Amino acid sequence: MQINLNKFFNIKSFVQSFQQCQAKLSTMVKLLGQQEAINIDIELFNDYKYSVDQLMELAGLSCAVAIAKCYSQDIIANKTVLICCGPGNNGGDGLVCARHLKLFNYNPIIYYPKQTNKELYQNLTHQCRSMNIPVVQTLPTTTDCGLIVDALFGFSFKPPVRPDFLPVIDLMKSTSIPIASVDIPSGWDVENGEPEGGGIKPDLLISLTAPKKCAAHFKGRFHYLGGRFVPPGLAEKYQLSLPEYPGTECCVSL
Amino acid sequence: MQINLNKFFNIKSFVQSFQQCQAKLSTMVKLLGQQEAINIDIELFNDYKYSVDQLMELAGLSCAVAIAKCYSQDIIANKTVLICCGPGNNGGDGLVCARHLKLFNYNPIIYYPKQTNKELYQNLTHQCRSMNIPVVQTLPTTTDCGLIVDALFGFSFKPPVRPDFLPVIDLMKSTSIPIASVDIPSGWDVENGEPEGGGIKPDLLISLTAPKKCAAHFKGRFHYLGGRFVPPGLAEKYQLSLPEYPGTECCVSL
Repeated sequence: MQINLNKFFNIKSFVQSFQQCQAKLSTMVKLLGQQEAINIDIELFNDYKYSVDQLMELAGLSCAVAIAKCYSQDIIANKTVLICCGPGNNGGDGLVCARHLKLFNYNPIIYYPKQTNKELYQNLTHQCRSMNIPVVQTLPTTTDCGLIVDALFGFSFKPPVRPDFLPVIDLMKSTSIPIASVDIPSGWDVENGEPEGGGIKPDLLISLTAPKKCAAHFKGRFHYLGGRFVPPGLAEKYQLSLPEYPGTECCVSL
Repeated sequence: MQINLNKFFNIKSFVQSFQQCQAKLSTMVKLLGQQEAINIDIELFNDYKYSVDQLMELAGLSCAVAIAKCYSQDIIANKTVLICCGPGNNGGDGLVCARHLKLFNYNPIIYYPKQTNKELYQNLTHQCRSMNIPVVQTLPTTTDCGLIVDALFGFSFKPPVRPDFLPVIDLMKSTSIPIASVDIPSGWDVENGEPEGGGIKPDLLISLTAPKKCAAHFKGRFHYLGGRFVPPGLAEKYQLSLPEYPGTECCVSL
């Protein structure tokens, strides 16, 4: 006995759907776990011999470019961009981002409550101040603010949020100003996303190097990938399936 | 006696030409002398606290982007880009440029005859090798070459060319392959341009930070400005009259 499946459903359309599904899977970016993200970072510095200065410059630049793509100056004309910088590398990306935004004619203000003594961070802060970007340690009012950049915690974050940073996290949780998060929405679990009880809800997420698992829970309007510096050998080793960056662009919409 | 000048020539048209001339002058980029270029460089590092890593990354990236704008991959498909790197910072810009060109899917080969022991240069070379960019110390044949990048000598060059570099200068003087010079056409006087007896004739000149006086003698097809990192205060101090970079672009056509 031969069953004619075409009687039950359209085989051709089924095969097409299956092929589309396969094609989509093959172009999907891999989402990194926390330890994997840490390992890739270590390899970039130890094996590929990049300096923090180099990669932070490219990462921060790609954040500024992604922000300019999503929030044109018409939208936030005469408004400020409040850049909230944490104590580590995520904060450093924020400092570099602020400087490039200033060169793109935005009006950044840096909130940087826990500054470190490390030379790189002191220099990055000095570069911003020398370009007339205010750097403050007290949370400023957001009356004139058109965008908040969340550069507090990155892929090495483990909860809970330190008390020093609770006020700024609370501000970002309650504000109606759009938020652009650098790599990880701060306070989120790097793998499981928004914490119980609710976390910040960024409008733009700029994943760096490769998106982390928490990006699966991102529901904002814009998701970009930046940090166009991953050597093909490293991408292959970790099976990153990175998307093609268009032309010479330093970031790509996901 | 009153002379009616209108009888002799059209005053209105003369005034218009004069105004156009003034407008053009006011938008003209200043050309830097050698000592001025050296002083600006020193200020960027000593006063503004930039690291060489940071500025070299941005300078090299802007060179790669300018090259991609002038020589699309269709034009040099399946061809190599020979990047000739000198012993100093100009060579470092070339190494960074090579890495970004590779990420833009070009096929760079680096000719780097005089390598230094400095950690930064060793790391930049290692980064290129790790991305499968050949780094050679013997001048390769240019059979498959579609473009030569001249990153030998920069704004601190004083003639004569050292004997080690005469073969590559001679190659560039005699070749019909287009040449892209980084900041200064190598062998040219930084202020007075092409040396007596003739020098290399680049098709593209990528001025970095601000063009130098020798750029007035450049007769190639493309002139770009890169290195979008000059703090407004420094530009003002040296009255650089830099052009507006379009949008978030890292280089601008002059």
